[in-house]
Amino acid sequence: MDEFELIQRYFVRTDEARGVITGIGDDGAVLRPDSGFELISVIDTLVEAVHFPTGIAAADLGYRAVAVNLSDVAAMGGRPRWMMLALTMPDADEHWIRGFAEGLHVAAAQHGVALVGGDTTKGKDVVVSIQITGDVVEGGAIHRSGATIGDAIFVTGTIGDAAAGLELLQAEQDNDFLLQRFLRPAARVDFGQSLVGVASAAIDLSDGLYADLQKLLSASGVGAQIDLDLLPLSDELRAIFDSKAQRRFALSGGDDYELCFTAPEDASFDAGTLRVTRIGTITAGEKLVCRDAGGIVEYSDRGYRHFR
Amino acid sequence: MDEFELIQRYFVRTDEARGVITGIGDDGAVLRPDSGFELISVIDTLVEAVHFPTGIAAADLGYRAVAVNLSDVAAMGGRPRWMMLALTMPDADEHWIRGFAEGLHVAAAQHGVALVGGDTTKGKDVVVSIQITGDVVEGGAIHRSGATIGDAIFVTGTIGDAAAGLELLQAEQDNDFLLQRFLRPAARVDFGQSLVGVASAAIDLSDGLYADLQKLLSASGVGAQIDLDLLPLSDELRAIFDSKAQRRFALSGGDDYELCFTAPEDASFDAGTLRVTRIGTITAGEKLVCRDAGGIVEYSDRGYRHFR
Repeated sequence: MDEFELIQRYFVRTDEARGVITGIGDDGAVLRPDSGFELISVIDTLVEAVHFPTGIAAADLGYRAVAVNLSDVAAMGGRPRWMMLALTMPDADEHWIRGFAEGLHVAAAQHGVALVGGDTTKGKDVVVSIQITGDVVEGGAIHRSGATIGDAIFVTGTIGDAAAGLELLQAEQDNDFLLQRFLRPAARVDFGQSLVGVASAAIDLSDGLYADLQKLLSASGVGAQIDLDLLPLSDELRAIFDSKAQRRFALSGGDDYELCFTAPEDASFDAGTLRVTRIGTITAGEKLVCRDAGGIVEYSDRGYRHFR
Repeated sequence: MDEFELIQRYFVRTDEARGVITGIGDDGAVLRPDSGFELISVIDTLVEAVHFPTGIAAADLGYRAVAVNLSDVAAMGGRPRWMMLALTMPDADEHWIRGFAEGLHVAAAQHGVALVGGDTTKGKDVVVSIQITGDVVEGGAIHRSGATIGDAIFVTGTIGDAAAGLELLQAEQDNDFLLQRFLRPAARVDFGQSLVGVASAAIDLSDGLYADLQKLLSASGVGAQIDLDLLPLSDELRAIFDSKAQRRFALSGGDDYELCFTAPEDASFDAGTLRVTRIGTITAGEKLVCRDAGGIVEYSDRGYRHFR
């Protein structure tokens, strides 16, 4: 099966998607933006053996590749709409591709995203790049740079789970909840949109809270104090790892794809059933100070960097 | 140097680009579309040792990665505007990256395209995916599917040069013109836009005229007859290769990134200094018939396919 047959069989969906004038199958997709909206464009790559262990299920990879991009759109307050896929792989294993496409479409369908184009190529390792175009009402995008002194700092969900799940996976141990948190991250797309006009700044947690919050602080030119005793940890993380490991996963783990955002003290928002936890306050300066019941905690981490 | 420093140093340009509300450096780019326009979205990947030989100059790779995407936008009649880059590479060789970024920015600047975001990751081979968003007046996009019986068939520029250049490169022979045609293809962006409302169908020549014209015919549900004696060949191609090789390069070579388009017999267009050659006519049926002075020529080629 060559790539044209592959695409036709597994990637083309015939259901009508809003704003899609021309989808897969021409030189490019033709898309109609809504008037009064600005576009949000994101792209993220997953590389085999770097971003995911060789041998994870194809469906999980397809799901995760979409989710990490949805999370970036969510952090901007955007509504994800259209997706482009660049898929490089060593061979055309039909079973693998069917699984990958299924996972990809499941993640996309959860948020009404249409796959509108792509490029399928041969290469030694699996490399998946997904680009998503979303939109947001004009002037509504949430930036990293908007935090001001006195704002409260929040995180969604629980943090540290994904890194803990990955560590278990690599040690060939199992905990389904933690593993799923790595393999199938839940991008906070609906809640992200509800933060437009509410949050002063936001970032998604891909490199770990400590490093990602630092980026938000740098972009905003402010500092922060957070209380490590307030970090939202799952029961599973607490049950399996000691408190030192819990803290390491929560601060430096990465891959959670939760949102960290800031908002004025008196801001109100409706998170529905989503857990949202206040962990600290924006301060003057550009320093991130961590405290717990014992006082100031010295902590240092620059987050994951390629080519360190 | 880690990827954040790399991006800051080589990929961020500070010149204002139209419609760019937020460029590189946040979770996503924020872009403002023009009212009355639809978007054109394209993505194309170049993989080391598959789409280009290992060891070509980084600047040529950067240029070419942009040009192949510009060409897809051109084939839709679009105006390219905003670009996202997913770059995977084995290490952060600063010299290489500087060259790559230079070539990329040169190709982008020729058509006023702004780099607005990306992802830089580590992997065994160099894999470059570029996504470009362009626009076109509402309803103006040129599709592969619009050719009708009796339309004239045209190609821009000369064809076969890039494949000939690649063959020389791989044989460690040199012809600067042919080599440059492979390394630095000239996407027909301005001419493509001028074809809106004129061309009935268009496709860019990435896989070779024979295979790409077949795709246009299939999408349009028509056939064609082309005259192989009319194929526009460069003086350099004629000087170096015999007539059989010339024809093979022109029909099956690929990588030229010229446009093949159809238009009614009485259509008029202004190509300026760009050579535009009529090579045949759209017919009933779905067969592509090749002729020359000697009569019907049997020719078969499905174009380049990954995972054949």
